[in-house]
Amino acid sequence: MQDFDIRPIPEEEIYRAQCYIDQIAKPLGAMGKLETLAARLAALQDTLQPSLSPREHFVFAADHGIETEGVSKSPREVTHQVVYSMLRGGAGICFLCRQHDFALHIVDVGVDHEFPLEGTALIHRKIRRGTRSFLHESAMTEEEVDRAISIGVVSVDEAVERGCKLLSFGEMGIANTSTSALWMYYLTDLPLEECVGRGSGLDYDGVQHKLAILRQAVDNYRGPVDAEAILRYFGGYEMVVTVGAMLRAAERRVAFLVDGFIMTACLLMARALYPAVTDYAFYGHAGDEAGHARLLRYLGADPILRLGMRLGEGTGAICAFPILDSAARMLREMASFTTSGVTDYVSSPE
Amino acid sequence: MQDFDIRPIPEEEIYRAQCYIDQIAKPLGAMGKLETLAARLAALQDTLQPSLSPREHFVFAADHGIETEGVSKSPREVTHQVVYSMLRGGAGICFLCRQHDFALHIVDVGVDHEFPLEGTALIHRKIRRGTRSFLHESAMTEEEVDRAISIGVVSVDEAVERGCKLLSFGEMGIANTSTSALWMYYLTDLPLEECVGRGSGLDYDGVQHKLAILRQAVDNYRGPVDAEAILRYFGGYEMVVTVGAMLRAAERRVAFLVDGFIMTACLLMARALYPAVTDYAFYGHAGDEAGHARLLRYLGADPILRLGMRLGEGTGAICAFPILDSAARMLREMASFTTSGVTDYVSSPE
Repeated sequence: MQDFDIRPIPEEEIYRAQCYIDQIAKPLGAMGKLETLAARLAALQDTLQPSLSPREHFVFAADHGIETEGVSKSPREVTHQVVYSMLRGGAGICFLCRQHDFALHIVDVGVDHEFPLEGTALIHRKIRRGTRSFLHESAMTEEEVDRAISIGVVSVDEAVERGCKLLSFGEMGIANTSTSALWMYYLTDLPLEECVGRGSGLDYDGVQHKLAILRQAVDNYRGPVDAEAILRYFGGYEMVVTVGAMLRAAERRVAFLVDGFIMTACLLMARALYPAVTDYAFYGHAGDEAGHARLLRYLGADPILRLGMRLGEGTGAICAFPILDSAARMLREMASFTTSGVTDYVSSPE
Repeated sequence: MQDFDIRPIPEEEIYRAQCYIDQIAKPLGAMGKLETLAARLAALQDTLQPSLSPREHFVFAADHGIETEGVSKSPREVTHQVVYSMLRGGAGICFLCRQHDFALHIVDVGVDHEFPLEGTALIHRKIRRGTRSFLHESAMTEEEVDRAISIGVVSVDEAVERGCKLLSFGEMGIANTSTSALWMYYLTDLPLEECVGRGSGLDYDGVQHKLAILRQAVDNYRGPVDAEAILRYFGGYEMVVTVGAMLRAAERRVAFLVDGFIMTACLLMARALYPAVTDYAFYGHAGDEAGHARLLRYLGADPILRLGMRLGEGTGAICAFPILDSAARMLREMASFTTSGVTDYVSSPE
């Protein structure tokens, strides 16, 4: 796998931005989470006038070999059906990207379906028609990992060349909560049952079956437990692409929004490889999938929204965008004590 | 006080909208809180294509007699200073209204300051230069209550005549967390200390002093404890105006956003007078003021955002707007199972 050179954001730079925020005409700390978001954004972009325009959202789509074991309520053809729905503009992510002015890119990186090569906006980067089932073999080869990482890198590079100031990532891939659960299990050491949830809508028996299959996969696995080995063996194409994209975004110093359980599992993996990547990540949404809350806690994350969504595609991340935008606008547009004519009774000592 | 005729939103109409939402191509319930917001909005506007444009935000500003007792960290002149800052466009509420395209109206209903009558966008509806101190006498007269209610009514009527589809209310009034605490105390029967918080930034001693003053006010009060009496005796002009505005918005079947502690106290009062008013209220933000979380729990409210803000002016409500807007857009723009080509594996029985 290629190397990344990610610069951590120094605490002093965040502190300096917070000192500026304390000069804005308002009671100290009165803008709550907007202040902590704004301080990190200012440090990240190295300006007190941060900008989040233009912005782009990528949905990476792929199928998973483990789907054949009945770990998901929805069968694999839903992956390509939803891709078509996204291409037609009717999926959940589409109206949210229109609402918040994100350019939306839908990328086939491994869907088990032959899409027409022309006539849609689909970006064709198919690695293979779905991964292998990790119940019995490695889901991905080393060469496929390299290719997936580089698809993520190139996607980000192209966006940055278009001037992109904020990135966001989403996924479509039936059964990818299974890969997420196993990445989480190996990288956090939490019990497996705490990493497994209902996905697109399993009932109690369905979750028990999924848990049994994943436990069997863990028992069958004989390889090393370092991050790269786990990424490859249990990985999904769309998830490894996302890991590459997150690492490249951080390397190029571009902020990105993190969606629900699957995208958070990708960030967990990216962080296991390069810890500084989280400095560039803004957690959008705490979803409803059982493992997500525990994973966020493990990461010390405090997401912007808690709306109980579990659609995927990046919908939770995009919903959170306007709050991050408010943080940036607070810096750019709110008057200071000096310019507002409001006496600074509040931050002065009593 | 004038009468209001508020029609409750029937549960069946909300249920009917939810049935429609279940036909949207997504796992059942996967849009989380967006679904419950959308169902109520659809029932409220009696359409599956609800609209939130155009929209208007009112900030009602006034001073409070109780301020002279040292219950607030910020002194009373901050009220008019912040009004000027709002008029110049540099206050917190201004950039948020610009961001989310709310027409912003700033209304002086009782500020202890003579604003120039021309040259600004200030709307002049001053009842008096601040209420009386409820430590020793009734803050408002009956005639002032009627006038305040009618200012709220007329403000809403003018907005509705401009075509307004969503209202939002905010306040500016140093010491108004004291009035809010007492309204909450009398209308919820919670212990007084659970209703009192730090306001714009009191320290521990400051809160103890505020609590002592409010306890004294309660001890001194000899009147009846019905809602109308409490509203008048402890009321603030901007808060009674807001009560009138909320009641009129509900009467005219227009949805409105509820901001932090003070606006929630106004809704509590409006609800004590006409319980159905809450059907039209969308709770925007759970703020940082101590009493607010308890008050929301009392009301059974689950606000859209929890960002730890405590600026007032309606900032938390406006921050929450894009989520409500997403809910409306989900109804208008997302494809159904019929139109999307996605098989309804998910809601069909197993």
